[in-house]
This record gives sequence, C-alpha cells and structure tokens, in this order.
Amino acid sequence: MRVSVIGGSSVPPETAAVAEALGERLANRGHTVVCGGLGGVMEAVCRGAADAGGETIGILPTDRRADANPHVTVPIATGLGHARNALVVLNGDAAIAVDGSHGTLSEIGMALAHGRAVAGIDTHDIEGVDAMASPADAVDYVEREVEATR
Amino acid sequence: MRVSVIGGSSVPPETAAVAEALGERLANRGHTVVCGGLGGVMEAVCRGAADAGGETIGILPTDRRADANPHVTVPIATGLGHARNALVVLNGDAAIAVDGSHGTLSEIGMALAHGRAVAGIDTHDIEGVDAMASPADAVDYVEREVEATR
Amino acid sequence: MRVSVIGGSSVPPETAAVAEALGERLANRGHTVVCGGLGGVMEAVCRGAADAGGETIGILPTDRRADANPHVTVPIATGLGHARNALVVLNGDAAIAVDGSHGTLSEIGMALAHGRAVAGIDTHDIEGVDAMASPADAVDYVEREVEATR
Amino acid sequence: MRVSVIGGSSVPPETAAVAEALGERLANRGHTVVCGGLGGVMEAVCRGAADAGGETIGILPTDRRADANPHVTVPIATGLGHARNALVVLNGDAAIAVDGSHGTLSEIGMALAHGRAVAGIDTHDIEGVDAMASPADAVDYVEREVEATR
Repeated sequence: MRVSVIGGSSVPPETAAVAEALGERLANRGHTVVCGGLGGVMEAVCRGAADAGGETIGILPTDRRADANPHVTVPIATGLGHARNALVVLNGDAAIAVDGSHGTLSEIGMALAHGRAVAGIDTHDIEGVDAMASPADAVDYVEREVEATR
Repeated sequence: MRVSVIGGSSVPPETAAVAEALGERLANRGHTVVCGGLGGVMEAVCRGAADAGGETIGILPTDRRADANPHVTVPIATGLGHARNALVVLNGDAAIAVDGSHGTLSEIGMALAHGRAVAGIDTHDIEGVDAMASPADAVDYVEREVEATR
Repeated sequence: MRVSVIGGSSVPPETAAVAEALGERLANRGHTVVCGGLGGVMEAVCRGAADAGGETIGILPTDRRADANPHVTVPIATGLGHARNALVVLNGDAAIAVDGSHGTLSEIGMALAHGRAVAGIDTHDIEGVDAMASPADAVDYVEREVEATR
Repeated sequence: MRVSVIGGSSVPPETAAVAEALGERLANRGHTVVCGGLGGVMEAVCRGAADAGGETIGILPTDRRADANPHVTVPIATGLGHARNALVVLNGDAAIAVDGSHGTLSEIGMALAHGRAVAGIDTHDIEGVDAMASPADAVDYVEREVEATR
C-alpha cells in the first residue's frame, strides 16, 4: 500500500533518524512512501525507504522536478504551493506524521478530512491522531487500520 | 481588509448565531468576509455580513458557482476539492476559526503556514491560535494583528 | 452574467484599446468581467469595465492579491501558477478571447472543455471559437449563447 | 527522460494503435510516459509502454487512484478536475499530442506556456506544434528538442 509521511522540513538529527528508520520499515514491508519531496522529515524518510529499495513519491510545491530531494524515486511537480498538501495525503492509504509544524498540521487536517487513518510520532496532539512510540508501531498501526477498512 | 472565516459545515444553532454575529461585526467594521462558500459557519457568517451590507467571497470546492450559499456576494468556483482550503486562507489578511472539524484544522494549518494571524472561537486548541471570548474580541484581535504587521 | 475575458499579457496599444472597449461594453450591459488579473488584455478589459462602474474579478496565478492590476475590484490569489487558468474560465458563463498566446490557448481549451461558448477577436483560429468583428458583436454573441442554454 | 502524452479520452481503434506504438517506442528508448491516467489515448499509450516494461505516470483529475487505467504504474490522484492538465504537461520534459479535443488543446497551450517542445500526430494544427508522420518520428523529435535545450 501507500503511506503518506508528513513532517517538518527542517528537523534535528534525532528526528531525521526516526524518519529514516520509518522509511526503511515501510520499504521492508513493501509499502510506497508518499511525501512532499523536500527536506527534513521528507528527505530522511525517502533516504530510509530508497536505501532499502523502496519506491518514494515526492509531490512538490514547485513546478520543478529538480527540487526533489535525491532520494525521491518519482518526483511530481505541481506548481500549486501549499495547496499541494492536499495531494500528499490524497495519494496515501493512510498517513504517519513525524514532528512537524503548520504545514504538517494542515496535512493532518486534510488526511482526516479524507478519512485517512493518521499515526503520529512526536507530533501535534490532535483528536484523531494516534500517538505511536516507534516507527515499527506506526507501520503496524496503519497496516491494521487500512486492512480494517477494506 | 479581508478576513477568512473558517469553521464547521454543519453546526448547532448557537454556533451559527456566533458566526452570524461575527459576520455582522466584520461588515460593520468595513471588512470583507472570505470563506468556503458552503453551509454551517460559512453560511451563517455570510448571512450576518451580507445582511449588514458587507461583501462575502465564497471560494467553493466544486466547479459550480450555484453551490454557494445564498449570502455569498462573490462566489468563486474552483473544482479543486479540499485543495481549495489553501485559497480560502490565502485570500484573507487574517483568519478567524469558529468551531470546526478536520477541514477547519487544515485551514488553520494553512493560515499559520502562510503567516496569517488566527483567532479562535470554540475551536481547536492549537499553538498559534489565540482563543477569543466573543466575535467582537476576535475582530479586534485580527485588526490589531494585521495593523502590527503593516 | 459573468464573462471570462482571456488574452495576451503584453499587447500593442490597439489591442489594449479593443480590450478596454470590450470591458466598457460588458459593464454597461451589466456583466461582471472575470480574468487572470495581470497585465495586457487583462488590465485593459478591467480598466474599461471598472471605469464604467463594473465589477472585475482577477484570478491570479500568484499567492499575492497585490499582484492584481489596479482595475481589479475583486482580486483572488491562488498560488496555483498556470493551473489557475482553469479557474478563470470556470468562473465565467462564457468566454471572449482577445489576441493572446499559449496561455490563452490553454484557456480556450479549458473553456470549451467546460462547455462554455467562446467568442474570439483577433485570436487563435480554433474550431469552436467564433470570430467576431468587434467588442459589441462579441458581447451580443455571448449573451445569445448563454441565453440559449438556459 | 519523461514525455507527456496527451490526447483524446475516447478514440477509434486506429488512433489507439498509434498511441500504443508510441508508448512502446518511448519505453524502448528508456523514457517514462506521463499522461492523464484515464482512457483512450491515455490508456493505449500506457498499455504500449507498460507492456514493454516502461514506467507510466497517470495524473488523474479525480481523487481516487483506482480511477487510473490498468496500465498506469504510478497513479497520482489530484481531485483538481481539469486543472490537473497543468500537472500533466509540467511533469514531462516534452509533450506528444495524439488526436484529441478541447482538453488536449488546453494541454498543448499549457505545454507551450511552460516552454515544452510539442510534437503532434493527427492533432490540432497549432503554431508551435510540429506535425509528425509516425510515433518513431515524434520520439526522435522530442529527444532532439530536449537535448538541444540542455
């Protein structure tokens, strides 16, 4: 399945390490990562997934594919600015939020509005976002949730 | 100035009354209301503003202007679905959230990501959203905030 | 009704004069002008309409209302780039193309795809675009076409 | 490189055969096909490319990945309606139009507006669209044009 991973575009090393482990876990479980294609959590999760041989789709706010981080295997340019956040969550079967600020908040709102299950790791405390202790727990969670709605 | 008013599309009468009073206040202060153009808080705030002679811009998710509530004076069809939420907040100088669920949450995130001041009335408890006790307080707040950044 | 006016963003004085006369005619007939909000044909048609007391909606590619030409009475920021062309034609009941290049071509295609009648003045020779000799003829044409489909 | 293939969503068998041969040729030359993800030319070009082992990106107007034709290897849901046409051409380094009606016309306009080279096979006679006699000629043409601008 596809999992949208959302989070801050500029994060400390320990958060990046969590996102990278998440990407690796998703790839090892056979899932495709969908993200916003830029830096921070987006880059780290793509690095983890791509290094493990996974597919990573980066849906960019700009109109240039070249703006994608180097670990995006399928860059999608949109030229839509922040409005592209809607596409990031629309293209996943569920979402996992890691850290993150206002942009991530908007993506959480969009994901819930589209009926997607959302797992959170050290992110906004929002009703509807289930807090997880680890990347492995988050992946288990979204697998279960997506399975349950099929 | 323009104020984006965001909130639930289906609300109880007391929430609608708050939104209507907010619309009236905004119009009486000479401000234009920008909203998503549909029902609930959107319709109530437009009713309050339009009845007081104000301008109300409704930025719709659908591709039909006719989907706007009857108190929208300038309906804008987009056909963008939830992605139109970005346009709702982009077209205000500040935002006021009243009640609201996931869509409103995404709009709060977008508003903050675009650097807009956000006042809240009985809405999500989010860092960056200043809680207000009344429509009058919320209007005073956004007037002050926008003035301060000019 | 609303009429989308599309055309080049940089045009010679004689083309601007045609667009300005078109705007005046539309306003005098009680119609709202919808356009892309920038320069050239867009600015001229807004000048003509606004000077005659008409409403002019400018749907901008950028995320700043301040980018609108000074004759736009209702600027709408989108931040969508060229994708906003779809919104320009979606918000009119019919379209009139004046001169114009690639962007105008895309708007003609979008207008026809949305089933809008399209009149043309010195513009692309496209099946489905009816060539008109003057602004007055173009306004008569779109009035007749919209009336016929009601 | 990536090539956007645009064309009618409902076409006669002989046009579909041309599109399928085009997809096969693009895949054999190592290129990724980008299209609107639905039927007609979109489906035929994806079939040709996917059967030859190529990557096919389908950028859909709807918000459901499941709406993609079965030969799309990377479906992208947008929920943007016709506004997604901008994304179809933005994600290719050049475009090839096969047959097509109004939607294709809008994509040709968008492609030219974004500075993309456009080859045409039995499509609109537009300045800036170079008419080609065969899929092989069209692929040679876009390869040369993209190479020349690097």
